Amino acid sequence: MTQLINDKDLNFLLYDVFKAQELIQFPRFAEHDVETFNSILETAHGIANDFFAPHNAKADHDEPSFDGKTVTTIAEVKTAWKQFADAGLLCAQHEYELGGMQLPTLINMAANAYFMSANPSTVAYSFLTAAAANVIQAFGTTEQKNTFVPHMFRGRFSGTMALTEPDVGSSLGDLTTKAIPLADGSYSIKGQKMFISGGDQDITENIVHLVLARIQDAPQGVKGISLFIVPKFKTHADGTLGEHNDVHLAGLLHKMGYRGTTSTVLSFGEHEQCHGYLIGEAGSGLKYMFKMMNEARVGVGLGAAMIGYRGYLESLEYAKNRPQGRIVSDKNPAAKPVNIIQHTDVKRMLLAQKSYVEGALALCLFAARLIDEHQANQNEDAAILLDLITPVVKSFPSAYGPKANDLAIQVLGGAGYTREYPIEQCYRDNRLNPIHEGTFGIQSLDLLGRKLWQHNSKGLILLMQRMQNTIAEAQDERVKPLAALFQKHLAIVQATTQRLGKVLIQGQVDQALANSALYLDMMGKVIISWLWLDMANKAVATFQQSELEEDQNFMAGKLQAAQYFIRWELPEIEHQAQLLNELDDTCLNMQESWF
Amino acid sequence: MTQLINDKDLNFLLYDVFKAQELIQFPRFAEHDVETFNSILETAHGIANDFFAPHNAKADHDEPSFDGKTVTTIAEVKTAWKQFADAGLLCAQHEYELGGMQLPTLINMAANAYFMSANPSTVAYSFLTAAAANVIQAFGTTEQKNTFVPHMFRGRFSGTMALTEPDVGSSLGDLTTKAIPLADGSYSIKGQKMFISGGDQDITENIVHLVLARIQDAPQGVKGISLFIVPKFKTHADGTLGEHNDVHLAGLLHKMGYRGTTSTVLSFGEHEQCHGYLIGEAGSGLKYMFKMMNEARVGVGLGAAMIGYRGYLESLEYAKNRPQGRIVSDKNPAAKPVNIIQHTDVKRMLLAQKSYVEGALALCLFAARLIDEHQANQNEDAAILLDLITPVVKSFPSAYGPKANDLAIQVLGGAGYTREYPIEQCYRDNRLNPIHEGTFGIQSLDLLGRKLWQHNSKGLILLMQRMQNTIAEAQDERVKPLAALFQKHLAIVQATTQRLGKVLIQGQVDQALANSALYLDMMGKVIISWLWLDMANKAVATFQQSELEEDQNFMAGKLQAAQYFIRWELPEIEHQAQLLNELDDTCLNMQESWF
Repeated sequence: MTQLINDKDLNFLLYDVFKAQELIQFPRFAEHDVETFNSILETAHGIANDFFAPHNAKADHDEPSFDGKTVTTIAEVKTAWKQFADAGLLCAQHEYELGGMQLPTLINMAANAYFMSANPSTVAYSFLTAAAANVIQAFGTTEQKNTFVPHMFRGRFSGTMALTEPDVGSSLGDLTTKAIPLADGSYSIKGQKMFISGGDQDITENIVHLVLARIQDAPQGVKGISLFIVPKFKTHADGTLGEHNDVHLAGLLHKMGYRGTTSTVLSFGEHEQCHGYLIGEAGSGLKYMFKMMNEARVGVGLGAAMIGYRGYLESLEYAKNRPQGRIVSDKNPAAKPVNIIQHTDVKRMLLAQKSYVEGALALCLFAARLIDEHQANQNEDAAILLDLITPVVKSFPSAYGPKANDLAIQVLGGAGYTREYPIEQCYRDNRLNPIHEGTFGIQSLDLLGRKLWQHNSKGLILLMQRMQNTIAEAQDERVKPLAALFQKHLAIVQATTQRLGKVLIQGQVDQALANSALYLDMMGKVIISWLWLDMANKAVATFQQSELEEDQNFMAGKLQAAQYFIRWELPEIEHQAQLLNELDDTCLNMQESWF
Repeated sequence: MTQLINDKDLNFLLYDVFKAQELIQFPRFAEHDVETFNSILETAHGIANDFFAPHNAKADHDEPSFDGKTVTTIAEVKTAWKQFADAGLLCAQHEYELGGMQLPTLINMAANAYFMSANPSTVAYSFLTAAAANVIQAFGTTEQKNTFVPHMFRGRFSGTMALTEPDVGSSLGDLTTKAIPLADGSYSIKGQKMFISGGDQDITENIVHLVLARIQDAPQGVKGISLFIVPKFKTHADGTLGEHNDVHLAGLLHKMGYRGTTSTVLSFGEHEQCHGYLIGEAGSGLKYMFKMMNEARVGVGLGAAMIGYRGYLESLEYAKNRPQGRIVSDKNPAAKPVNIIQHTDVKRMLLAQKSYVEGALALCLFAARLIDEHQANQNEDAAILLDLITPVVKSFPSAYGPKANDLAIQVLGGAGYTREYPIEQCYRDNRLNPIHEGTFGIQSLDLLGRKLWQHNSKGLILLMQRMQNTIAEAQDERVKPLAALFQKHLAIVQATTQRLGKVLIQGQVDQALANSALYLDMMGKVIISWLWLDMANKAVATFQQSELEEDQNFMAGKLQAAQYFIRWELPEIEHQAQLLNELDDTCLNMQESWF
């Protein structure tokens, strides 16, 4: 059986680090207790294991096909979709009266983690649908909600987010899809969208596209963009389906990985008969879409973390059972070979993976905790902090999850490079994550150019306070030196941030933002180091007194991984900070003609 | 048309940096001149372009298949093979009387670079054959040479190296394939080999396997290993074929990339009828094989560099032609979008690629130059230096070529992730290179545990002398600060090396070698920085006075890439050196039960 996650680790993160049990104090979650949380997690684990994991490789191998008329996906995807929907997981976080479970995001995210580990491309249909339904539920009219949302929650309809166009990817303000007002209050939509995940399939009766378009005569740039519901089949108020809307699949894109999820080129209004329905106010499309996008960004982070996590567990299992060679000081050819986990360089590759993926999962769960604090308690601080770290939640796992998969392949050697083992698929799947929902570069500009300075930098102040608290908590003799090393590097980040802030205020925007990718990586390393310090503190607090060997080993592993990340990875920021502080212009000054 | 290499760059490397024209002074190359060199390069370029590049994607998509009896490869592979052989490229470096061209390795390596860029998996059959023929030619009996080598050189037979077994990969000393002496002086071979590239195919009439096996009652470990010629079909002295030898394809392995090259599991002697012929002395198998292996390691470096180079050129072309967004200081939504090459973060990704792949190619050509100095002149210093740097020549390109491909995908964004563009294949193909012919970890142990200390560290002394010369040559005002930065880091490497040498002498082998992977990466960065400094010097010397804009741009590009590598990448070794100097035991002390 495939191990999807280390359950002891997940349990530790949920209850010892992020205190899920405390969420029950909020009225919204009052009917829950640890038992209901765990029962939902067990359900998710069971479905992920029984209905998602088994066809992960098959969905990759037998990727969706398009014969010019219809798309075909393998049957297992439909069964998995139905299981997910029937378990109520498409609306787990919604109110009871909507059929939901009022589940905290923290628990829902943990449930999702099982699916991301088991089969990221099949579960993508579910996550996109839940996110699209959330947008309609948050910003749609009562009629729009009634027409679409219940059918999405129950799995009859799926949802997509249709932003990108063939000529417009990262620069959404330039999009050209048009919306022309019709007499009945609806709009005629015309344009082409590209890279639309789940844009067509044979899994659900209907597909609800959320489409960004520009209403005739709207201003240029982002202010002219509105959001529309465009169903594949026109939908009556009772949810029954009418005629095919003028939305057509122009073709499938063929990806390196994540192959089970269709990636589509969609034509809207080729025959001028594509009807769309405006969500909320005209010109606010990007604002609404960003609700979905921010959820999606955290979701991308989680996916990247879990694909990384899956590869880590696979390579760990292999390393424990593969005899090869002897430790370097043993020159006796007659000695019995050791399992490769005994080789220090293999330990390095496993420890690095552990530090990346357990750190990345902790980061996503921390973001989930903030969402809960904000939603359940209207805690604005939580929202501000979440907003600040969202680029990191998206990007750190997307950068280090693939690194983990790279190391996992390397642990297996030649075997890891073959499709006879599952890790090469993890490696291909995970490579999508630094691209979609805003590339690494886009996230870095968002962080350094915008997020840091919002609300008078209150997000940063809140983050630093939490970090200082964690340093103060580090009283154990094994954790103290790590806290000291962390504090030293935290000061570097603070000084660098101040320096860049000044340069921005002076109007040297291009100079200040030139090396933003370094800044994003630096901030990622610092935040993950902080989470490792926190995990080290909590591991000691939880397990120090335990007499179980298993607990002692778990604690020792957390301490060693914290040490690895803080000693091996964190100090790399010194050089990054130097380049940032010097406003190094090597890249800025490079000229096209010099390449 | 696919651009396979920047010809101006190759020309610069061959004639301005590595002075190929000076090789003509050696008697072995006396009949050559720059014109013959260039004419051979043009031939190679033409064949690579016309017969290899066009089916690179097809060979990946329609990978070789096995129906239980025979292997089928696409027809284009056979045509390409024939073109390569007919052009005399399988024996280009051999003596005229053997049908060769007495081509310097430097020029042959440059010719090979075109093929590696065009189609690494098709040309792998050729490179393996040339390498196997070289071993027989170097160590075989006259009869063995006459029976096999001419047919390999002419492309009737191909060759393989059969080392790895299902249970023996990196630890060759443990291999179990048996060789039982027969009355006629040949051996009965029995065992299974795995991951044998080109181990079966339908391209050539015969396949000549070079098989490592253990003669009955031979000692344990590497000293008991001998090398055998095992042809697929028994071969008469005149090269005509007899019956099928008892070597059978047990199955094909299915790789993530490099799919055009068959990767096989081979059974030798299932019916006790597998005949093998001992090469040279019993017990010297690994020594002979290492001749092939060292060539193969440089070849892997070149392949990794060129797959990286190909991706760089593709992403550069895309970036020059893809409009998207505006530079960050331009907030006018009505402004025309710029091509993405104008974005600083895209320049960073292109400049990093340029520095990796042009640096890696320079490293491989430097190795080739050393091979020529040694072979043509019996220059032992060149051999010693080559021996020292071989782990770096194999490993730096294998680590940074894939990094370049990763960046190339990122430059294209979503497009780069699709199979509609060629880069994702580069990314998959290149991932093999840190694994085969000795993993990154194995290379790091070879360097830090062995190569550095051979010949009283003369290799290192020679390397340092060359580096000091390059520093002294750096008199241009643009290069001087880079030389100073390089010198500072060179001192760090020297101190770290001395420290680790002392620890080794004290017998703390496991401690000294614990973080060898860091050392290998550090040495790679230093050597590549040195080559960039050298390229910067030579670019200034060659082009400073030129009035051609093209030359000035080329020089500026080399200077900027040198600056990028030395300012952005090289300083990362400070932290690596610190961990090495401290004998950091984070990985060494990690325990299996803590994971």
